[in-house]
Amino acid sequence: MRRVAREPGGIGSSAKKRQAILGAAAVAFLQNGYLGTNMDEVAALAGVAKQTVYNNFANKEMLFIAIVTQMTNAGSDAVRDAAGAWRTGTDIGEYLRRYAYRQLSIVLTPRLMQLRRVVIGEVSRFPQLGKCLYEGGPKRAMAALAKVFAKLAERGLLAIDDPELAASQFNWLIMSEPLNRAMLLGDGSIPNPAALRRHADESVRTFLAAYTRK
Amino acid sequence: MRRVAREPGGIGSSAKKRQAILGAAAVAFLQNGYLGTNMDEVAALAGVAKQTVYNNFANKEMLFIAIVTQMTNAGSDAVRDAAGAWRTGTDIGEYLRRYAYRQLSIVLTPRLMQLRRVVIGEVSRFPQLGKCLYEGGPKRAMAALAKVFAKLAERGLLAIDDPELAASQFNWLIMSEPLNRAMLLGDGSIPNPAALRRHADESVRTFLAAYTRK
Repeated sequence: MRRVAREPGGIGSSAKKRQAILGAAAVAFLQNGYLGTNMDEVAALAGVAKQTVYNNFANKEMLFIAIVTQMTNAGSDAVRDAAGAWRTGTDIGEYLRRYAYRQLSIVLTPRLMQLRRVVIGEVSRFPQLGKCLYEGGPKRAMAALAKVFAKLAERGLLAIDDPELAASQFNWLIMSEPLNRAMLLGDGSIPNPAALRRHADESVRTFLAAYTRK
Repeated sequence: MRRVAREPGGIGSSAKKRQAILGAAAVAFLQNGYLGTNMDEVAALAGVAKQTVYNNFANKEMLFIAIVTQMTNAGSDAVRDAAGAWRTGTDIGEYLRRYAYRQLSIVLTPRLMQLRRVVIGEVSRFPQLGKCLYEGGPKRAMAALAKVFAKLAERGLLAIDDPELAASQFNWLIMSEPLNRAMLLGDGSIPNPAALRRHADESVRTFLAAYTRK
């Protein structure tokens, strides 16, 4: 411990090393896959001793889980923060279109798409990775949406009996088409911002046609 | 050629060998992944000479593409045949609920889910595999649905301006939630038949609420 405190960077240096390891490991995993990555490589890329990697992460699975958690939670939090809460007086259609567009543009990045592909490819061997991505990604996104819809239903602004179901339908109406294309057709199929806006608008139109109070 | 014709099974024996190779390769790929499978193993599993494998499939990628094509097209065709065409007088809700349930129960099998996981895991290295699954799977399913919706719109039975868009929304309202859970959470998350029926009913209810002529 004393040795770490004397290094340049002082008190923060062990946190910095941890971040360097996570950054290096993300590069390696996304490029070479889970099986194609080893701890020696991560240590070399991060510029730390192999023992330092093991001091931070007991094994490769724990390291990858930390990356999946960090990347998916950062994505979910960015969506939540960018969309903001719905406020009285805001047009619901406008709010939901903005929410949909933000979610699409934050999630549909080559980095998150490749993370998702690597995790899915390893689900049968390492189920913990998939569980971690599901909980930090879609589950978290749908829980945030369910709160929005519960509030809109409570105020009598939308005809929603089951906010969890409405949140799941909203989420997948928005995400599925471009997400599943990106999974199978690669990053070249990620729509440009104008196409994402059009897709957000069409998805919200259908959602509101189903859930607007008659 | 003469030698093949003399084998037990006569004229059909080269077609049988091809089928044996495809069957063995499907087992190997689904169990060991794309990189974890080699042509020697496939030949041994199929009980044929390695040269016979190469006479039928130029390389491992061509062999895997043949499997993806066969498995996804068989799935899409089974959905189409099971659902049948919509006929005048049939209740639209009942028809769509049956269609949705058939599609869910045919696609959400451990075999097709594992095929999809393996393909997604290899998309960045072998983009042709993902393209092949996309075209034989969702693209084919949505094209069949678009025809159904064009017919229902033409007869003034549903308020649909864009049958392709409606088909994509119907497809993903139905498939996304259980498909994405199965991708990330494994086969244990595939809903049982009663839960699939409930999910089909809820999805069709939302779709019809959006697209029923007011």
